[in-house]
Amino acid sequence: MTRIAVCAPSTPITREDAEAVRALAAAEFPGVELVVHEQCFAQEGHFAGTDEQRLGALLECANDPSVDAVWFARGGYGACRIAEAALEQMGHAAVGKTYLGYSDAGYLLGGLYRERIGKPVHGPMLADIRRAGGADAVRRALAYLAGDKQGLEPSLGGERHAVAAFNLMTLAMLGGTRLMPGLANHVVMVEEVSEYLYAVDRLFFHATAHLGGIAGLRLGRVSDVPENDRPFGTDAEQIARYWCERHAIAFLGVADIGHDAANKIVPFG
Amino acid sequence: MTRIAVCAPSTPITREDAEAVRALAAAEFPGVELVVHEQCFAQEGHFAGTDEQRLGALLECANDPSVDAVWFARGGYGACRIAEAALEQMGHAAVGKTYLGYSDAGYLLGGLYRERIGKPVHGPMLADIRRAGGADAVRRALAYLAGDKQGLEPSLGGERHAVAAFNLMTLAMLGGTRLMPGLANHVVMVEEVSEYLYAVDRLFFHATAHLGGIAGLRLGRVSDVPENDRPFGTDAEQIARYWCERHAIAFLGVADIGHDAANKIVPFG
Repeated sequence: MTRIAVCAPSTPITREDAEAVRALAAAEFPGVELVVHEQCFAQEGHFAGTDEQRLGALLECANDPSVDAVWFARGGYGACRIAEAALEQMGHAAVGKTYLGYSDAGYLLGGLYRERIGKPVHGPMLADIRRAGGADAVRRALAYLAGDKQGLEPSLGGERHAVAAFNLMTLAMLGGTRLMPGLANHVVMVEEVSEYLYAVDRLFFHATAHLGGIAGLRLGRVSDVPENDRPFGTDAEQIARYWCERHAIAFLGVADIGHDAANKIVPFG
Repeated sequence: MTRIAVCAPSTPITREDAEAVRALAAAEFPGVELVVHEQCFAQEGHFAGTDEQRLGALLECANDPSVDAVWFARGGYGACRIAEAALEQMGHAAVGKTYLGYSDAGYLLGGLYRERIGKPVHGPMLADIRRAGGADAVRRALAYLAGDKQGLEPSLGGERHAVAAFNLMTLAMLGGTRLMPGLANHVVMVEEVSEYLYAVDRLFFHATAHLGGIAGLRLGRVSDVPENDRPFGTDAEQIARYWCERHAIAFLGVADIGHDAANKIVPFG
């Protein structure tokens, strides 16, 4: 039996979405027990409850010895406000767990990886059930947590370096903070959503300056790019190649990750 | 006679705006000669010409011994792509000049300050002529460059620390790059425009992690905040105070800077 605790370090989910995923798990994953923390439905301004509420729920899940994996419910911003305090208060039971999420959850994945607490994994979250094809994303996450490795990002099969994956904005914001893990000799995958291409270029300017010594970079999907008053002039891959070249980082091609239902699974390390 | 050279390291301006500012300068500032570089009107995708064109024009202006001040035409993104190369190729004539701009020009102001080249100054740009009340912003800039100090940000009168001012996004992106100046013991002023409050919070998370040792922070205007699907829960000043407190940075109150015609002048140092 795999016991999965769901909490929301960033923004809240609806009871309807939680119920849909509970039903899917009950029907298709008899070896999985899903426990959705009540904090996932809390709301305080932008966030799924106050910083104290979100921190408390995350620590309850992480420090519960009966829980095998902590699954982040949804991104949207907020995890960076509680990540340092959470890492400081994580005990022995937190070390053996898997932590699964992406997007804003990347602040936690990065900090956990830096502190060598548990197994951080970049992959679908509960709230992905809302997407077109979202049931498949949720299935991929649950299957992975139950021990099935079929949903892994395909380049991992032939990869000999350690890997990590991040939303580009999240990685850019991590740089130079106490949550930023050392990524030397890692293949780093990045993806982005809903940013203008000029902002993607700006984020690459910043993020690549913090990625000295990595083994290479793979570009996930850069989706839902808003239309600007004029075309940027190059596409996302050309932007990635440009900044990689400036910093002598090997550009290794695409990664099958993104803010979509096809988002594959990337265990850190 | 003050000779001012205008170039556009980021995005282009219109001939109409250049002509309006030329006319204003000719009518009201007989001691000013304004030379608008042809590159200001170039267009290459998002930018005012290719990286090579923008770099070339900036270096022509900076390295021209007959020019007293380089005035950046407009922000909008792009200066970070050419700033390092520009700093490397700036010669003796570049050192004696004033460099005036804000927003995306902050990458250059930061890099110039770090390399101790000339006098970087945060203040209105030529393209501000388009704003409501923009003629006053342009007058403030021209008057400052002609030697009149009346347009200075008011807190500077009583300030004993060195100061610097940045757009918050620009400062956040500078952190950890080769353009980031040492700001220890400086009062740092920041302003922002057109960002959601959750993004402002995120930028403060990042920027304050790079501001260790500063003398304090002042908050300029955070304007044109888009409406989100739910209220953030606190305002921009509360956000600034929160992150300053987390990093033991003194919050010193407001600064009279922003993406508007009232934007006052902050000479670095």
